[in-house]
Amino acid sequence: MATTSFTIEVCFSPRLFKYIQTREDCIVVVADVLRASTSICSALRNGAIKILPVATLQEAMKFKEKGLLVAAERNGAKVDFADFGNSPFDFIPNKLKGKILVYTTTNGTRAIEIAREAGTVAIGSFVNRHALSKWIVRQAKPVVILCAGWKNQFNLEDAVFCGSLIESLVAQKEYVTGCDSSSAALDLWSVAKGNLLQYIEKTSHRKRLKLLGADDVLEHTFTLDSTDVVPVLDGDYIRDVSRII
Amino acid sequence: MATTSFTIEVCFSPRLFKYIQTREDCIVVVADVLRASTSICSALRNGAIKILPVATLQEAMKFKEKGLLVAAERNGAKVDFADFGNSPFDFIPNKLKGKILVYTTTNGTRAIEIAREAGTVAIGSFVNRHALSKWIVRQAKPVVILCAGWKNQFNLEDAVFCGSLIESLVAQKEYVTGCDSSSAALDLWSVAKGNLLQYIEKTSHRKRLKLLGADDVLEHTFTLDSTDVVPVLDGDYIRDVSRII
Repeated sequence: MATTSFTIEVCFSPRLFKYIQTREDCIVVVADVLRASTSICSALRNGAIKILPVATLQEAMKFKEKGLLVAAERNGAKVDFADFGNSPFDFIPNKLKGKILVYTTTNGTRAIEIAREAGTVAIGSFVNRHALSKWIVRQAKPVVILCAGWKNQFNLEDAVFCGSLIESLVAQKEYVTGCDSSSAALDLWSVAKGNLLQYIEKTSHRKRLKLLGADDVLEHTFTLDSTDVVPVLDGDYIRDVSRII
Repeated sequence: MATTSFTIEVCFSPRLFKYIQTREDCIVVVADVLRASTSICSALRNGAIKILPVATLQEAMKFKEKGLLVAAERNGAKVDFADFGNSPFDFIPNKLKGKILVYTTTNGTRAIEIAREAGTVAIGSFVNRHALSKWIVRQAKPVVILCAGWKNQFNLEDAVFCGSLIESLVAQKEYVTGCDSSSAALDLWSVAKGNLLQYIEKTSHRKRLKLLGADDVLEHTFTLDSTDVVPVLDGDYIRDVSRII
């Protein structure tokens, strides 16, 4: 019996995204594990009704002046005028419940801007990996995972996350790796998964966070499947669709 | 006792090279394992006195009209007007001994063009890995390995080669991985090296070569350390420097 299979492609840098031939109906998962995609999951789980990703600080500041809550990070640190940086620990329920959050980061929100031209944008991180993969399987569409990277360069923690999501997809349904990047991501995950926190010690970004004194989030960030939220871009806003579709 | 250490960085696509901050005195190893970098080693080992890499078919044709031997490939296949494609098996001694070879390929020679702006360009492949790493160690300079990729995309066989060269460098002297890409390459090599030929079965390029009936070169291409040549760009030409420095 012939079965339909859907490809999973991986793009290791936003600068390489244009070389991937995406299908119109694909799902583009944006991965910026440290930390935008993990923090977006946190904000939605803790009661934000929706998140508005914006690419520039200028846009974020305009919304701040209009009275909205703003999270803004550059080079790993909170921007002065913002209410939050981009630590998932910032987004606690009593600050966010029922609120709209405007969000801009060095890499993550820019990747979202690029991805939205290509298909349905979802946000992926270790914490929502399983929920996301179940949602993807229900959509039955090809997937491209776009790593936000670090200033356009390859980034190990995002690549390893891609491998973990691919493993989860391949286990559930007729999903297959569709390019060399997705094969590589799966192999990196096979090396890392035995002790993810230890593996991540060698990444450049982990060293940057340590320098900034912002590495308290690591255990949370690299804990698999701790939340059911599935953040998906709907018009201009990211919402949790886990209970909708 | 303090020792000097030199970093090894890896760039998975020519399009990401500009985001690497190279030092003026670095060595840039261009890797295009299937097949330009393997074939350049073949041509030099089999008697070509020097190789002129050119980026375009127009340039290659001009040299052909002047009576030089030309190797030219696009999309994996030999270009009509050329004397050779880019199979390492094309470059046999009785055709090349004492000759200059003009060479252009889809990905490899373009990567050389980009690399020459940044430092001393050397050509790396599995067949000359050990000889190249010994030469690099004698230069005592930082290294960037630039993967030619496939049409600007990540390419598994080049990434795995990077890992094999890094392993060889780290084993010989004070070389250390200097970025997430080099850590990833080393991990991919650790997965692949137990059975390299079997590992490479899953790569996109191996499938392209099979379709073209051009996969007879695989065993040669993935045999480690079979030649001592060290191709290095000197002015406009690539020469074997293994006996010079």
